[in-house]
Amino acid sequence: MKVAIVGATGAVGHELMKVLENSTLDFSELQLYASPRSAGLKLPFRGQELTVQATPEGAIDADVILASAGGSISKALAPAWVAGGALVIDNSSAFRYDADVPLVVPEVNGQAALGHKGIIANPNCTTAIAVVAVAPLHRKYGVKRMIVSTYQATSGAGQKGMEELLEQTHMQLHGKEATASVFAHPIPFNVIPHIDAFQDNGYTKEEMKVAWETRKILGDENLIISCTAVRIPTLRTHSEAITLELERPATPDEARELLRHTAGVEVRDDPEAKLYPMPLTASGKYDVEVGRIRASLAFEGGLELFVAGDQLLKGAALNAVQIAEYLQAQGALKPRAGAV
Amino acid sequence: MKVAIVGATGAVGHELMKVLENSTLDFSELQLYASPRSAGLKLPFRGQELTVQATPEGAIDADVILASAGGSISKALAPAWVAGGALVIDNSSAFRYDADVPLVVPEVNGQAALGHKGIIANPNCTTAIAVVAVAPLHRKYGVKRMIVSTYQATSGAGQKGMEELLEQTHMQLHGKEATASVFAHPIPFNVIPHIDAFQDNGYTKEEMKVAWETRKILGDENLIISCTAVRIPTLRTHSEAITLELERPATPDEARELLRHTAGVEVRDDPEAKLYPMPLTASGKYDVEVGRIRASLAFEGGLELFVAGDQLLKGAALNAVQIAEYLQAQGALKPRAGAV
Repeated sequence: MKVAIVGATGAVGHELMKVLENSTLDFSELQLYASPRSAGLKLPFRGQELTVQATPEGAIDADVILASAGGSISKALAPAWVAGGALVIDNSSAFRYDADVPLVVPEVNGQAALGHKGIIANPNCTTAIAVVAVAPLHRKYGVKRMIVSTYQATSGAGQKGMEELLEQTHMQLHGKEATASVFAHPIPFNVIPHIDAFQDNGYTKEEMKVAWETRKILGDENLIISCTAVRIPTLRTHSEAITLELERPATPDEARELLRHTAGVEVRDDPEAKLYPMPLTASGKYDVEVGRIRASLAFEGGLELFVAGDQLLKGAALNAVQIAEYLQAQGALKPRAGAV
Repeated sequence: MKVAIVGATGAVGHELMKVLENSTLDFSELQLYASPRSAGLKLPFRGQELTVQATPEGAIDADVILASAGGSISKALAPAWVAGGALVIDNSSAFRYDADVPLVVPEVNGQAALGHKGIIANPNCTTAIAVVAVAPLHRKYGVKRMIVSTYQATSGAGQKGMEELLEQTHMQLHGKEATASVFAHPIPFNVIPHIDAFQDNGYTKEEMKVAWETRKILGDENLIISCTAVRIPTLRTHSEAITLELERPATPDEARELLRHTAGVEVRDDPEAKLYPMPLTASGKYDVEVGRIRASLAFEGGLELFVAGDQLLKGAALNAVQIAEYLQAQGALKPRAGAV
């Protein structure tokens, strides 16, 4: 089985290679694609050197294509990839809201992936991280209302986002003024309540994605969700403060117990020992850290929690690879007809 | 009239001097007090040099004492200051919850200050910043439920908090590991959901202060409030995402109009022009920036907003001086009996 990464030289592409290196996914060949200016670059993978190729206009000779080169490239090329027989696991927002494209977090709704028609969408990073923790609570207690405030890292804007933070922080520490280019305003020592474009309702698209995608993944159109998405000067890992109103009351102890047995979650919740989710500890980790679990003061019987998940891993690369692993484990990932 | 600052060499003390320099408060003398190791230090004020004295054990010969040297010093010494005839405006949490101590944000409940018995408490920074924006909405629409997530600057831990962020960021950029001393964990490029001590209910004292103090200032014990307080790597200005359920529905336009005519508030709310509250623009500013005002997706007829206020100013020094200014304007700030 052949796997291809489109967007191999970006921040998520880099993580896709690292995750694939340690993945149980059974494949015989990895192809790397990126923009023409990266063509010829050699990247190490499992002791070999793989050469990056320019992404072709048409079909790609691979069984699974992990696409992470942005929405416009996915939109333009994915139909040709599918026509060529590949399964596309797409990290962009291009197809997430299409009714016939499953939006999948394997621990939560892996089964939905089985019904794909050639494209499976990987959710927005903020959504993927939240939903791992919220899904088991929703199943057991029925989430009625969910209020989310995010603390999002610069990695959400890719490698160049992290570079802008590091470079401009360095400049600012040396008394030089920095002009923002990736972000709307200088990000060092600042907070920017603006991620993605503003919509007519005053919410950003990032905020609406959390609402739209959480409902689709949990399969519950009645879920009331509101989000404030905020960029802060961190490198990796998105953190989120989540307040939940529940149909059936839950105690923090019950929630902790349930989450301790939830795949993809690490309960990190011992305040007295100063253990709670943080980018410092969650970065580079596959599991989403969940902590600060407490009885909500806003909703009787509800819960409040704090989560931190590596945006480049569970929020992107890891989840994409896990979708492929899930399908293979279900016997639903087969080489293309005609291919070996 | 004589004014004294206790804790003159701290971050808030520094801001108290700057605010007093430009204040309309009519006073003839400013005395500076700090710990013995700062005694003798000379600080500039209105073209003069003032000498810092060691805080005495007993009474201070001043009419108004602006105390910002921490809760234990206020607790220990304020009774003697009051017995000596001074009015104490205390920045610590020592007396905030005492029934006979008014907790005052002049724009909101200035009148409460008139009933003081020698001590007036300055609210917690996060509360002061939120309440300036929420109070007029509460008066007009009746806030029923308020959910707050904070983005708090290192200045909340004083000068040493800001220094730890700057020094450790510098170290980290040069590949050196830093050990936290002011904060529970390294703060550069990190997020710490832990400010002040954890309480039995799983909330931190900082989070509970927002609930307790907002209720006291707004004079509404039925207000439902829940807060998640989070330290982030910024220098000054606390930001807050606030979700409000209202008794009577409000539109964002109505709220914007109301807040445009609210003292202490700057409506900064034009997303298309990339105008919204941020530490970058709110730092050093007297007004609290309020923006991202939108119809709540969580509560029909409710509102969501984002605020940013300089923690050292409206969150501390400015509010304390404004209390004195308010009392003087009301003719309620008189030199002590026997004093000139």
